[in-house]
Amino acid sequence: MSALTKVVLSERDMPTHWYNISADLPAAGITLPPPLHPGTGQPIGPADLAPLFPMALIEQEVSTERYIEIPDEVQDIYKLWRPTPLYRAYHWEKALGTPAKIYYKYEGTSPAGSHKPNTAVPQAYYNKEAGVKRLTTETGAGQWGSALSFACQMFGIECKVYMVKVSYEQKPYRKLMMQTWGATVVPSPSNQTHAGRTILAATPDSTGSLGIAISEAVEEAATRDDTKYALGSVLNHVLLHQTVIGQESIKQLEMIGADWPDVIVACAGGGSNFGGFAFPFIRENIVGGRHARIVAVEPAAAPSLTRGVYAYDFGDTAQTTPLLKMHTLGHDFVPAPIHAGGLRYHGMSAQISALKEAGLIEAVNVQQRAIFDAALSFTRAEGILPAPEPSHAIWQTMQEALKCKESGESKTIVFNLCGHGHFDLGAYEAYLNNKLEDFDYPTEALQKSLDHLPKVA
Amino acid sequence: MSALTKVVLSERDMPTHWYNISADLPAAGITLPPPLHPGTGQPIGPADLAPLFPMALIEQEVSTERYIEIPDEVQDIYKLWRPTPLYRAYHWEKALGTPAKIYYKYEGTSPAGSHKPNTAVPQAYYNKEAGVKRLTTETGAGQWGSALSFACQMFGIECKVYMVKVSYEQKPYRKLMMQTWGATVVPSPSNQTHAGRTILAATPDSTGSLGIAISEAVEEAATRDDTKYALGSVLNHVLLHQTVIGQESIKQLEMIGADWPDVIVACAGGGSNFGGFAFPFIRENIVGGRHARIVAVEPAAAPSLTRGVYAYDFGDTAQTTPLLKMHTLGHDFVPAPIHAGGLRYHGMSAQISALKEAGLIEAVNVQQRAIFDAALSFTRAEGILPAPEPSHAIWQTMQEALKCKESGESKTIVFNLCGHGHFDLGAYEAYLNNKLEDFDYPTEALQKSLDHLPKVA
Repeated sequence: MSALTKVVLSERDMPTHWYNISADLPAAGITLPPPLHPGTGQPIGPADLAPLFPMALIEQEVSTERYIEIPDEVQDIYKLWRPTPLYRAYHWEKALGTPAKIYYKYEGTSPAGSHKPNTAVPQAYYNKEAGVKRLTTETGAGQWGSALSFACQMFGIECKVYMVKVSYEQKPYRKLMMQTWGATVVPSPSNQTHAGRTILAATPDSTGSLGIAISEAVEEAATRDDTKYALGSVLNHVLLHQTVIGQESIKQLEMIGADWPDVIVACAGGGSNFGGFAFPFIRENIVGGRHARIVAVEPAAAPSLTRGVYAYDFGDTAQTTPLLKMHTLGHDFVPAPIHAGGLRYHGMSAQISALKEAGLIEAVNVQQRAIFDAALSFTRAEGILPAPEPSHAIWQTMQEALKCKESGESKTIVFNLCGHGHFDLGAYEAYLNNKLEDFDYPTEALQKSLDHLPKVA
Repeated sequence: MSALTKVVLSERDMPTHWYNISADLPAAGITLPPPLHPGTGQPIGPADLAPLFPMALIEQEVSTERYIEIPDEVQDIYKLWRPTPLYRAYHWEKALGTPAKIYYKYEGTSPAGSHKPNTAVPQAYYNKEAGVKRLTTETGAGQWGSALSFACQMFGIECKVYMVKVSYEQKPYRKLMMQTWGATVVPSPSNQTHAGRTILAATPDSTGSLGIAISEAVEEAATRDDTKYALGSVLNHVLLHQTVIGQESIKQLEMIGADWPDVIVACAGGGSNFGGFAFPFIRENIVGGRHARIVAVEPAAAPSLTRGVYAYDFGDTAQTTPLLKMHTLGHDFVPAPIHAGGLRYHGMSAQISALKEAGLIEAVNVQQRAIFDAALSFTRAEGILPAPEPSHAIWQTMQEALKCKESGESKTIVFNLCGHGHFDLGAYEAYLNNKLEDFDYPTEALQKSLDHLPKVA
């Protein structure tokens, strides 16, 4: 075939600015409800966030500027793997027998193997600029922790990662990757924080959760002058940094004269991958006269957009973070132990939640056996071995492609393959040996955790 | 910095032909000694190889055509990850404080994570064209086995991999990767072949070796009509396919107006990575009036080029393969269990061996603790986590760069980073915990195994 399989941009075509969707939300009739103070329930100001984040990131969090310039120092690190390739999935289309045109953006070529370094690098940079010496964070399966370890190493900042204990024990390779990049990794709950000790006193054999690990990392940052905190998803500035993905994708599709996409698909946990990929396309829907469907795919085990409520809630278990108005399953909801660890979160980005409320995006959920069916179909055709998280997007893309096969329509579908599955082969083993579990919808647990939502006037 | 960090080619700039160094060896005064029949000791003809390989590959093995066209079907699969990027190692140069200009070609972006698919894909293709239904092969650490599994999946051929038992048990992820791509993987020695049963009878707890696994894979192919054999290194046609690496590198260096390299560095086990990267540069030395130093780096535990002899020897333990004149440690030499499993081979490509004899390339060897020192230095500056094999090249590059620091020379050094280390983090763990062993030079074992070299008139 003469058409291009892989569309590569030159470094000279890299986006020079991040795209801030907050600038375009008013045009869609959306006003983002403000974050509230966890103690007073009143809207918070920049000073309230200052113990945790450097001012440059706080400014980005609340900015309504449409484009924010990417510093040269960040671009220099981005260039280690950016721009990332966009592929036409010719082989998979053929295997599925679909007339659909399937494209995918691939973020697995970064050092950490996912899209996470797109925000880890600027977060480390702005902290370095502000004189911060140490960063703390939490990590579940380890994607975010390894991304931040890498970024801190690039700027000579210390990095301490609270890793959910069950992952710390079951995924030694991710831990080793962080250590190789110079980070300190401790299993959470730990005895190094008040939050950790409290949990351990009540539940000595606790295997941890993302909500607990966040509480520990936030506590350490809040109580040490030389230390700040970094979060890998959910917040506006995190999604902002990820918009290099969607911007590059649009440029690449234009470069090869592809049709404007009919459907945009990405998985959604806290929302950084979905937002980073979809926001530049959503902008074209809001102000550019385009009409792509935008579909978020979440696991049935953590279905915040599809089964949660739109309400103010905490970001962590210990109720120490500001309250965000978001789709939530309740801050003490613990998702079933699915292999897509990066999607096991009770909440969702406030921006994405507001877009969902306004009807600008769709959301579906899916069980994990189905996503591995899709992952196998994909990897046997295209070669790249996907992580369980983007396999959610692969599953939805497959459904859309098979609908096209039935209807004969030649739609253009674009999804984001946000990371490789080199550290997830244990999950593939379970699948291949027919030992992979699906979990019931968490109907009862959800009812209980939603009863614990904070009361906000 | 304004200069490019990462040099990407368009698919339209991909090499259309493989480069065959056999065409240029006569100009360097080299005549390649012919392979000999393992029974008769006489030069073999194409018919002798026909039970193992399809005729198209046999023709490539003996060809003296300078350029051999890459079939469209192979290019279509190559495009899943090729062309691969070439990087300027600005960050590492800075960390080393060297005035040297360091570039590296990165082959870790392939689905299998190394350069191996460059030959796995054409081998699967030519077998498919010849009506072959099944391929057998051997694998040590699993790089080659996963590459061939992937390639066979692309062309709908069955793939059976004999995996060295110790790796089968210690590296479950590589095995799972092969299975995910549909291959059958058996630990070697197995009871499925005569060779395997013989070894097991004598040594029931044998942990296997590459030489034994080759014997098993060759035996199965030789005794089944529907099955042929594929080798991941050593042979001329394998190195031929890998020359896309060096050809792309030259084009990328020219594209950015880099100086012609002073030093070319690659690791060498059987020679496929070294040959594929270096041969196009060596051609420029032979006929293009260039004068780059070409350095092969091998492990101290398997130092065929630096401590072996140049003699006819078998490629496998059971003495079933044709005899090749090569640098060898003896076909029953078992290298110490270093982590660079891909370099644990007793022999060396006949082409590379002849080039070494003629003084056209240099060779050095290095212990494994030193290569991990270099790997850490590299990954903490450049982000990419290298496999232990290319870390040999990284070590040598570091020596050259530090020499430049001393002398103040601004030499241009280019090395091949042939694969990522995502499945080698156990080795990094040993290194970080100061538990990584160096092994004595195998002086005595070597003396013994060299006594067993076949007698050839």
